[in-house]
Amino acid sequence: MAPRTQYDTIAEIAKRRGFYWPSFEIYGGMSGFYTYGDLGTKLRRNIESLWKEFFVRRQGFLELEAPVINPERVFIASGHLDNFKEYSSECKKCGKSFRADHIIEEKTGLENVEAMGGNAIKSLLVEHKIRCPDCGGELKEPSLILTMFKTEIGATGGEIGYARPETAQAMFLNYRRGFQHAREKLPFALAQASKVMRNEISPRRGLQRLREFTIMELELFFDPESPACPWYGEVCEEEISLITEKMEAQGVTEPLQVTVKDAVEKGLILTEWQGYFMGVSKQYLIALGIPTEKQRFRAHLPDERAHYSAQTYDHEVNIESFGWTEVSGCAYRTDFDLKAHMDASGLDMTVLRQDGSRFVPHVVEPSYGLSRLFLASLSESYERKNKRNIFHLPRSLSPYQVSVFPLVSKDGLHEKAQEIHKRVLDAGVWAFYDEGGSIGRRYARSDEIGTPLALAIDYETLSDGSLTIRDRDSWTQVRVHGSELIEKLMGFFKESYEFEELGELLERD
Amino acid sequence: MAPRTQYDTIAEIAKRRGFYWPSFEIYGGMSGFYTYGDLGTKLRRNIESLWKEFFVRRQGFLELEAPVINPERVFIASGHLDNFKEYSSECKKCGKSFRADHIIEEKTGLENVEAMGGNAIKSLLVEHKIRCPDCGGELKEPSLILTMFKTEIGATGGEIGYARPETAQAMFLNYRRGFQHAREKLPFALAQASKVMRNEISPRRGLQRLREFTIMELELFFDPESPACPWYGEVCEEEISLITEKMEAQGVTEPLQVTVKDAVEKGLILTEWQGYFMGVSKQYLIALGIPTEKQRFRAHLPDERAHYSAQTYDHEVNIESFGWTEVSGCAYRTDFDLKAHMDASGLDMTVLRQDGSRFVPHVVEPSYGLSRLFLASLSESYERKNKRNIFHLPRSLSPYQVSVFPLVSKDGLHEKAQEIHKRVLDAGVWAFYDEGGSIGRRYARSDEIGTPLALAIDYETLSDGSLTIRDRDSWTQVRVHGSELIEKLMGFFKESYEFEELGELLERD
Repeated sequence: MAPRTQYDTIAEIAKRRGFYWPSFEIYGGMSGFYTYGDLGTKLRRNIESLWKEFFVRRQGFLELEAPVINPERVFIASGHLDNFKEYSSECKKCGKSFRADHIIEEKTGLENVEAMGGNAIKSLLVEHKIRCPDCGGELKEPSLILTMFKTEIGATGGEIGYARPETAQAMFLNYRRGFQHAREKLPFALAQASKVMRNEISPRRGLQRLREFTIMELELFFDPESPACPWYGEVCEEEISLITEKMEAQGVTEPLQVTVKDAVEKGLILTEWQGYFMGVSKQYLIALGIPTEKQRFRAHLPDERAHYSAQTYDHEVNIESFGWTEVSGCAYRTDFDLKAHMDASGLDMTVLRQDGSRFVPHVVEPSYGLSRLFLASLSESYERKNKRNIFHLPRSLSPYQVSVFPLVSKDGLHEKAQEIHKRVLDAGVWAFYDEGGSIGRRYARSDEIGTPLALAIDYETLSDGSLTIRDRDSWTQVRVHGSELIEKLMGFFKESYEFEELGELLERD
Repeated sequence: MAPRTQYDTIAEIAKRRGFYWPSFEIYGGMSGFYTYGDLGTKLRRNIESLWKEFFVRRQGFLELEAPVINPERVFIASGHLDNFKEYSSECKKCGKSFRADHIIEEKTGLENVEAMGGNAIKSLLVEHKIRCPDCGGELKEPSLILTMFKTEIGATGGEIGYARPETAQAMFLNYRRGFQHAREKLPFALAQASKVMRNEISPRRGLQRLREFTIMELELFFDPESPACPWYGEVCEEEISLITEKMEAQGVTEPLQVTVKDAVEKGLILTEWQGYFMGVSKQYLIALGIPTEKQRFRAHLPDERAHYSAQTYDHEVNIESFGWTEVSGCAYRTDFDLKAHMDASGLDMTVLRQDGSRFVPHVVEPSYGLSRLFLASLSESYERKNKRNIFHLPRSLSPYQVSVFPLVSKDGLHEKAQEIHKRVLDAGVWAFYDEGGSIGRRYARSDEIGTPLALAIDYETLSDGSLTIRDRDSWTQVRVHGSELIEKLMGFFKESYEFEELGELLERD
């Protein structure tokens, strides 16, 4: 039996407790689609809410929610119809198709084969005698396949449409509206957290490569002659791990430790806006529970970079079962996209400077894959201790904040526990009530879904109103009086104090 | 010129300020698709959050997030492939297609023509000599058209797939997982707020009929022999306006005023669970700003009802420009769906009672169209006063809670206002900073996007720390001292006190 990876363990818990599982299980499944259960839906929402805190609310950036299905003319203008393609190899024996660059990478250990181009991919398949990963059959020569989902809009004789493979185009399509709503002032940004779909050829990496997923992304529009970011000072002293384009080209794998400010001054990061978002990105990932040493920024080489980008840094996380994994990209898209849409639509998207000159705004884009962050948070927070599973998720990410347990479900403890459960719910907390099985098993179940605190109601609660609060991370308990319970819990979840302090504060009652 | 309806006015503000506008504007548009801007995205999110408060969090129901694209076998099993169809009439002259029942309704004023069936639709088109609404050309005989978006999953020789036209099937497909996560106890519910897509034949009613939209829905699973709802007591005394099936059949349009409890006892509502959700639904709509007198519940007649439903009540809102409009449906789906999926999958979905008998759970489903609620809230909260536009949105729905204005942007007022803006942001409030134009214009702009409070910073703020708070609804202002500003604002937004009280509390500082 193959050794179980941490990911296997997490996937088992995820299915059993309700984080996520493969979709359409009862009808045989379909690769590339996952369903999120109660815990997964809540964890996803919390990751998204925190993204809005770090990237939208404080800056006053403008939000957007645009359709997934777009008519073909949009993708002609954006270049997707010509470019959103991958090399696919079909097996002559079993008829299955595979993404050519991925099966080469699996066989050879090479990285970024996609960037090497079609001729290299064709040669590598031959050179390494790569056969069908499923049946061992011979493969046909690979061909370029459009990996967008195609449909027809309108029931009869309608127009061809596609599901969007990314969210960015919506920000460019709606740039003129955004500029109007930003009162015709730069810089401004359009931010969107929404679904995208990619018709992947043979998705086989679980949550890491999905046919339907959520991107959280913003496009920041600025005047290249006024490139200052007003919040730069808040993050420019952040130290980040950087693998620059030059290091990448030279095969240097040990990242440079550098402050955002130094990296921008030395030209390693092209613009202050990229530096700003990379600094915020580091802080955001720390809030998701990913420590600094598990984070790095890696530059794309010119041939790996998308055609629109002057510089792209991937933000990577070292995930236990997968190694360094891209969770985000920060791209300097210049004026490429707006110019393309100006040409295609014939509409003016230039901005007038006070000196009378006109320009097309430049764009910096930080972009996140929600499922990748979800996986990184679960993986990093997982611990196996005394044969128990624990997710030490940050308080603001946990699906439920509090569990409420009566010691036993008789002698009025059930009613008292229900009353306290109701008080906690009234305060706006996501609280989980559980009275099945021994209290030890209930603590274990609560830890296994990452709930930071458990409140236990016992016979003393009936006599003096006190109850115990147990900490998921340290397994310590404090007995506290209930009068200011709610205020103290709220303080705890706003991270204004630690568990030890919570105990002290409550015991003082 | 046709008289402007309230909807025309709202649509104009929506476009200009950033609530919503037709998608793909720069490429000529595409009917049935709308894009939500900054204000719209925030308003949508607040409506959805409130739905979770009323229908998910307090009850501890389980959330779900499942894919939009499903393989064809799912829709064969669910019956959608055979049934999700509409009659379409194509114009012989211009080639455009129209939904036959809708063009009949527009021409004749008849309602629910869809429910009359294919033969009636064909006769009505002939009888009323209905021609193309666009060019006046002759129409072909209508034919049944599948109104799901079709695609192919997998790039080459893959499987046919469709975008789901509703979210409910995901709850049935994942019922077995849900039952496991609910620890094999009934009742439990699976709730989902997510995107659906319908390939409408000729959507021509703005936000009311979209090709892509969000449904907020839950499926409550229960034992028909234990039909009690544990929270029934919380809402059973709510008085609701009811048009029952019998009244509907007799053409009675004046609704019956009855408590939920009486309606259930008299058998006008078939189950306690429907009664519960209808009572909660009334409260939810009140929280969205829809007063009782603009709400009613109307039963579907048997031929209007979906094939799976034993009873359906639409929750309707009287929207100014549209009249009574369905925003929600509460259906008693019995064991229809689980039985269908048991048959199609061959899997057991029965539950064992303590007495050893087995049964398939029954289902009650309250379901909301987010865009309809969005429209109802905007319409109901709109007022034109002294040539100004105001959205009196409930505090918990407003896109921004607070505006912050310096009286002028010189003499240090800008810096002071920025400092107060930062304090408000630090407290977690969505706050909008504005220093352009006269303060009167800024108040007007703030009212026009429904912001409940505006804080103005003036020369007195510099000398004694006091500032003015202005109320959107009454246009009254109070001058207050700033020391406990944040706490008081938070109290205001938790609706624990009214504006008058807020002023008094703050003045006491």
